[in-house]
Amino acid sequence: MATKLRVGSGVDFHQLVEGRDFWLGGVKVPHIKGALGHSDADVLLHAICDALLGALGLGDIGLHFPDTSNEFKNIDSKILLARVMELIKKEGYQVVNVDSTLCLQAPKIKPYVPVMQQTIADILGVSVKEVSIKATTTEELGFVGREEGVVAYATALLEGC
Amino acid sequence: MATKLRVGSGVDFHQLVEGRDFWLGGVKVPHIKGALGHSDADVLLHAICDALLGALGLGDIGLHFPDTSNEFKNIDSKILLARVMELIKKEGYQVVNVDSTLCLQAPKIKPYVPVMQQTIADILGVSVKEVSIKATTTEELGFVGREEGVVAYATALLEGC
Amino acid sequence: MATKLRVGSGVDFHQLVEGRDFWLGGVKVPHIKGALGHSDADVLLHAICDALLGALGLGDIGLHFPDTSNEFKNIDSKILLARVMELIKKEGYQVVNVDSTLCLQAPKIKPYVPVMQQTIADILGVSVKEVSIKATTTEELGFVGREEGVVAYATALLEGC
Ligand SMILES: [Zn+2]
Ligand SMILES: [Zn+2]
Ligand SMILES: [Zn+2]
Repeated sequence: MATKLRVGSGVDFHQLVEGRDFWLGGVKVPHIKGALGHSDADVLLHAICDALLGALGLGDIGLHFPDTSNEFKNIDSKILLARVMELIKKEGYQVVNVDSTLCLQAPKIKPYVPVMQQTIADILGVSVKEVSIKATTTEELGFVGREEGVVAYATALLEGC
Repeated sequence: MATKLRVGSGVDFHQLVEGRDFWLGGVKVPHIKGALGHSDADVLLHAICDALLGALGLGDIGLHFPDTSNEFKNIDSKILLARVMELIKKEGYQVVNVDSTLCLQAPKIKPYVPVMQQTIADILGVSVKEVSIKATTTEELGFVGREEGVVAYATALLEGC
Repeated sequence: MATKLRVGSGVDFHQLVEGRDFWLGGVKVPHIKGALGHSDADVLLHAICDALLGALGLGDIGLHFPDTSNEFKNIDSKILLARVMELIKKEGYQVVNVDSTLCLQAPKIKPYVPVMQQTIADILGVSVKEVSIKATTTEELGFVGREEGVVAYATALLEGC
């Protein structure tokens, strides 16, 4: 095998409920609902964690940060992403680029995207151009359309050093 | 970073309603329903646009072609894909390959796939072998299974010139 | 085009019903329900088949193994994956790595993942590190959350020899 490239992909789901902060891409987004979960329930960071882990066959976020552990209760998912990056580096890999899509009916996240990109890029050790965050509604379809939940997809390209 | 490769992924959703044409992959597919949207609502071309934009961190289709703009009302999504390709070329990149999956319960799109592939390949400047269009039902599950909507996923590999 | 790399992605859906075995990643997983389908309905292997086919523009699993054919009735999907690999090799390509995610509410598949990885790696001709199998619930959302169905996503990187 000539290439030292690896591809990974992740998908994550969280319920939206009142009375929770809404963390997305490491940023607290003002909204009437927030994502429910054991950690801060940052669906975008979780999908990116899984894409990075998956590219190198390192298991998944549930394996590394079990929701049965008090250590991860309400934890800032930026800490989880940083730990994943330590594993990636230990394997001798670096991030080429990450692309992601948030599926949510509301709110509009466009104003927060640049800060999310910078936050994630800093943790991954890449430039903001290498961290893409896209968003789409589901056109009112399904549980995302009914604002019961949020989904994030992420794809990552890694390169061995 | 040695590689000039970038990976991107996109997902798009549209409602299916009576009284609309059903545009898929740049082709009008005969069906009792069509996709609802501000543009021609071509879910496959939109997912591919987002995969291309996402690979280079150029934002998403909603940023470039806002559904609040009259300019894009009922617009042929082939024009949108061509504009995305201009952005890709301006960044000094070309398409290596695109893979996509249409999730829809009906109709069978197999007869239209070769024309869709040629249409997209011409816009992307690649051969038809580099444009994959797959299809699956959701086995009658969810809003796709109830024929209320259609979903498309796309993945793209780009290479810097 | 300098690179001989290609990226592919697949997604597959199956209903969960009582009275069927539950095949996942080539392994029979003990559960009160199993996946419904013409073949053994192995959602994970099907998504991987589609990612491999899609990377090289070889059509989809429905094209190669139609569910209208008696030849594929209750067939072991490991045979389908092996046939897909023959097509990949005939094109002069090999697998760099495969990443996948199973979306299911129950049961926990963690104990079965190493055997699934080895099973798939043997068919693809790669090491287990090159076959990632991740899992997530949908946090009780949608048809996966209601245990009516199961979804699998797969991403593949291939390299020309
Ligand atoms: Zn999560
Ligand atoms: Zn669209
Ligand atoms: Zn299947």
